[in-house]
Amino acid sequence: MATMLQAPPDQMQELGQQLRVDAVRCSAAAGSGHPTSALSAADLMAVLLARYLRYDMRNPHNPNNDHLIFSKGHASPLLYAMLRAAGAISDEELLSYRRLGSRLEGHPTPRLPWVEVATGSLGQGLPIGAGLAMTGARLDRLPYHVWVLCGDSELAEGSIWEAFELAGYERLERLTAIIDVNRLGQRGPTRHQWDTEAYARRISAFGWHTIEVDGHDAAAIDRAYAEALSTTGRPTAIIARTIKGRGVSEVEDEEGMHGKPLSHPEAAIEQLGGVRNVSVAVSGPESSSPPNTFPSGTLTIPRFEVGDKVATRTAFGKALAAIGAARGDVVALDGEVSDSTRTEFFADEFPERFFEAFISEQQMISMAIAMQVRGWKPYAATFAAFLSRAYDFVRMAAIGRANLRLCGSHAGVAIGQDGPSQMGLEDLALFRAVHGSTVLYPCDANQAAHLTAEMADVDGISYLRTTRGNTPVIYGPAEVFPVGGSRLLRSSSSDRVTIVGAGVTVHEALKAAEELASRDIVARVIDLYSVKPVDVATLQTAARDTGRIVTVEDHWPEGGLGDAVLSAFADGSVQPRVRKLAVRSMPASAKPEEQLHAAGIDASAIVEAATSLVHS
Amino acid sequence: MATMLQAPPDQMQELGQQLRVDAVRCSAAAGSGHPTSALSAADLMAVLLARYLRYDMRNPHNPNNDHLIFSKGHASPLLYAMLRAAGAISDEELLSYRRLGSRLEGHPTPRLPWVEVATGSLGQGLPIGAGLAMTGARLDRLPYHVWVLCGDSELAEGSIWEAFELAGYERLERLTAIIDVNRLGQRGPTRHQWDTEAYARRISAFGWHTIEVDGHDAAAIDRAYAEALSTTGRPTAIIARTIKGRGVSEVEDEEGMHGKPLSHPEAAIEQLGGVRNVSVAVSGPESSSPPNTFPSGTLTIPRFEVGDKVATRTAFGKALAAIGAARGDVVALDGEVSDSTRTEFFADEFPERFFEAFISEQQMISMAIAMQVRGWKPYAATFAAFLSRAYDFVRMAAIGRANLRLCGSHAGVAIGQDGPSQMGLEDLALFRAVHGSTVLYPCDANQAAHLTAEMADVDGISYLRTTRGNTPVIYGPAEVFPVGGSRLLRSSSSDRVTIVGAGVTVHEALKAAEELASRDIVARVIDLYSVKPVDVATLQTAARDTGRIVTVEDHWPEGGLGDAVLSAFADGSVQPRVRKLAVRSMPASAKPEEQLHAAGIDASAIVEAATSLVHS
Repeated sequence: MATMLQAPPDQMQELGQQLRVDAVRCSAAAGSGHPTSALSAADLMAVLLARYLRYDMRNPHNPNNDHLIFSKGHASPLLYAMLRAAGAISDEELLSYRRLGSRLEGHPTPRLPWVEVATGSLGQGLPIGAGLAMTGARLDRLPYHVWVLCGDSELAEGSIWEAFELAGYERLERLTAIIDVNRLGQRGPTRHQWDTEAYARRISAFGWHTIEVDGHDAAAIDRAYAEALSTTGRPTAIIARTIKGRGVSEVEDEEGMHGKPLSHPEAAIEQLGGVRNVSVAVSGPESSSPPNTFPSGTLTIPRFEVGDKVATRTAFGKALAAIGAARGDVVALDGEVSDSTRTEFFADEFPERFFEAFISEQQMISMAIAMQVRGWKPYAATFAAFLSRAYDFVRMAAIGRANLRLCGSHAGVAIGQDGPSQMGLEDLALFRAVHGSTVLYPCDANQAAHLTAEMADVDGISYLRTTRGNTPVIYGPAEVFPVGGSRLLRSSSSDRVTIVGAGVTVHEALKAAEELASRDIVARVIDLYSVKPVDVATLQTAARDTGRIVTVEDHWPEGGLGDAVLSAFADGSVQPRVRKLAVRSMPASAKPEEQLHAAGIDASAIVEAATSLVHS
Repeated sequence: MATMLQAPPDQMQELGQQLRVDAVRCSAAAGSGHPTSALSAADLMAVLLARYLRYDMRNPHNPNNDHLIFSKGHASPLLYAMLRAAGAISDEELLSYRRLGSRLEGHPTPRLPWVEVATGSLGQGLPIGAGLAMTGARLDRLPYHVWVLCGDSELAEGSIWEAFELAGYERLERLTAIIDVNRLGQRGPTRHQWDTEAYARRISAFGWHTIEVDGHDAAAIDRAYAEALSTTGRPTAIIARTIKGRGVSEVEDEEGMHGKPLSHPEAAIEQLGGVRNVSVAVSGPESSSPPNTFPSGTLTIPRFEVGDKVATRTAFGKALAAIGAARGDVVALDGEVSDSTRTEFFADEFPERFFEAFISEQQMISMAIAMQVRGWKPYAATFAAFLSRAYDFVRMAAIGRANLRLCGSHAGVAIGQDGPSQMGLEDLALFRAVHGSTVLYPCDANQAAHLTAEMADVDGISYLRTTRGNTPVIYGPAEVFPVGGSRLLRSSSSDRVTIVGAGVTVHEALKAAEELASRDIVARVIDLYSVKPVDVATLQTAARDTGRIVTVEDHWPEGGLGDAVLSAFADGSVQPRVRKLAVRSMPASAKPEEQLHAAGIDASAIVEAATSLVHS
């Protein structure tokens, strides 16, 4: 292989053609893929790879490495062609693209060590890139540069503008968005087609430096990158006019050619000048500084007195501050409701590690994803209802093997007067349906504090559901609550029915059990604080012992606690009769206790369900 | 009451003070609410109500009425104060704010006839308003004006910028955004505080006319509205500098006063000049034209031949076009993937009723919500995975009693090589957890076509899940598939196990049943095309007859088809043993059949599960 090192721009054309050829080859071998979307950006990436990217290819975990994110993840053939040129993967592996068992997936994922986040849902790479630039500036305090390759179509996503706002406002000068304006989306022209000025006007209004460039002119691209690196106090957007399918006359600027391998790949390769073996020695980072760290101390989980009334959201906030004191790698983010979620306690003590995302939940999650890429341990919080705004980002975070700790406050009808728009009533279903997730729902302050602390070491997406109102402290501060466990709050050999609740409904269950006892119905009460994974053994034992189960949750009936309980009985080894109490009609405004009653999830509803189960 | 009709601007101050007083009074009566957020916008709304809004208060359904949306839904006390001033609600009802049973919820919902959409999740009112302006311009073809009151905090939401882009690009001159720049969010200052020029620069870059104004100067506000109405070819944003808590010195421009009733409401009312009884005779619309309609015809549902292989997404698209021919009130929207979802068939035939949302799913759903406000019947489609981007909007649509028909294509691992970012694997859980929703998942083309047609008359949020690849046509074109039903595909008195699938897994179930028959295990097969509501009777009968159930779904294990089946057995009247087959590990790229096998949801996995159930 000919080796190219910091090659002059006029030699870039050759590398660009190689990237094109390799994108065509691997898509042809796969029989699928998006070669035309790779062809448009090949020159942009050739110049970046050979002359500007600072990356230790042998050590993807070098903290000083630049970051390169393909926000247009469908251009993956181009990324893989770059990795071949950089010597990271073999030609053989390149041609395994999209095959069973290959690391080269249709859209990039961290299965490949040079890929840090999953992309493929458009509009996510730039928000994560902005998050990485924040991480570099505020947490790592290292001079790595963040390069994000964006498509033009994805600029229609609002999340992109959340990122432009964040990065412009925060003056993230080490962030460069490279926008491949190839004019054509999947099904036809974009709104602005080749009107690069329309993009420049919008993006510069958000405080960015913008450069319009011919995306196939290597010298012009080179100047643009140099200008981006020398621009201070502002991030830079390079808005590159390109041609989709560039270099292959059969598909150049043609509609209807998105997401399809070329019909005549051999002819295309010939037209592109044939297979090449240019090898790029990617420059390593200049800096070898260690990343900044913050001091760690000992963990003192906050303690709450049994019998006091304390909101679990308050306990979460206090525990988060305690974890912040214990672990310098813990950071927190909030969607402009830190006085409600109580992340304010952390923010007050560790302002350098607290990130205000304002009301942009998608950007908040993206920032959290970025921070965990660099080894930080983010907790991000907003109302449970509003985390749903960022669900696609959480879904993609799971695909990206991200470790995120999320807290949704103001769960359920129990919030009271604010009404349904502010009530998280589907969050358990949403977070249970995230691959590899952990879903926790504490009922008292000590439990909330312990679970918050445990989340620090839980891999994957973990979710804590907290409650707005004060609830009685029922557990002592020294008790432990392992993920996957549950607590038996009342249990005896004469139990005739089991009540399973979590969060606010635990207290209703305890009240109901008292009332049932006065009617000579002895009830077992389980606090199912770990909704996923669920404590199958305890549930099956209860089913075996009592034969009757009442589940009660401040959530819609679908996908929440009741369904989690039913799944524990699916194997049929024990077959209880189950009554699932949940919110079944649309709430309005009312006091919390009125809401619980109207929804049929208060103590009286539990008593009625349990009694009817026992007597039928 | 003194009556004010098209009063001069200098009398507006009095009305503004009344709105303030009433906002304070109702929040005080409720003991909760957001009076300070109402106080900042009172002058803006006073001038609008008395001099610009064209609305027949006695007939909220008058098609020529202007539309007023409180995108900052938490300012509801101001909206209700306006309704009192307009004579729509009594003072007594005003003081029922946030109480059990009141129509005056904490955040506005269509429980009140003068409210058309639910707000309270920020960043949604403007996208819906843009959708209403599109509806007026392109569908109704009526000159109604759309007024949207926005907060400054919510401009951080990306969805707001999707709306600015849509409305600017489409030159929606009958849309006015009134931005209440009161500087303070919930927990503190916004990014741009009173830098109204920062907002103006951004918004005008998107093609809007912008006017910066003192939001407490009635004459200036008046001029701004007049300018907005006379501006052609562009929407207008009135960027009003205001003071949060304006008029009550205790809270004016004070942090920490968001979302709280005033501590001293009586003093505040006195400072505001006391209770007033100004009555506003709101002007009715000038136009009395009927809304535009499109021709209707007869419905000819497309027919597919048994034995052919046709993708359900194709059948959806063809059926949608057929429904479009039959019903002039049906409209379609897509998120720039109409060649994939197949809404292109509708777009080709009815371009006037097709709306390209580009890659902005939140704006797509918002447009659909807007169109159904005016009685149109929207179908909106994108990949199932990407509908998750708009989940908060769907959640709010349900609170707003909206009727939406959604289609998610490319469901599950069955899509093959594109990989997990493109696979809808949580959509059944997400849509089951929407209040009042209907969830449908056809397995063949005729079924898909019939269900698509049925959705036109389904109230609430209905969701159709379609498949990328071709599947065999197994039902004749004349068969019917009622919502809430299922189909027995194999059934006999000697059935020993029941296999329940939907979509692609129905075909795997049929193959498995053949294989099981060769092993002397007779299996019942149920096509559970209606995942919600679910056919409890058929499932219970199968459980009773066979005692063993295998569920199989191309979805994560949580919240989908398996959980829907388990919920049918919760009452314990019949207690089968259930094996739930679902996708349990993170997929990568592979061919569809390889994906089904790797996920353990193909025929061989079903055979194994059924055999082990029968033999254990």
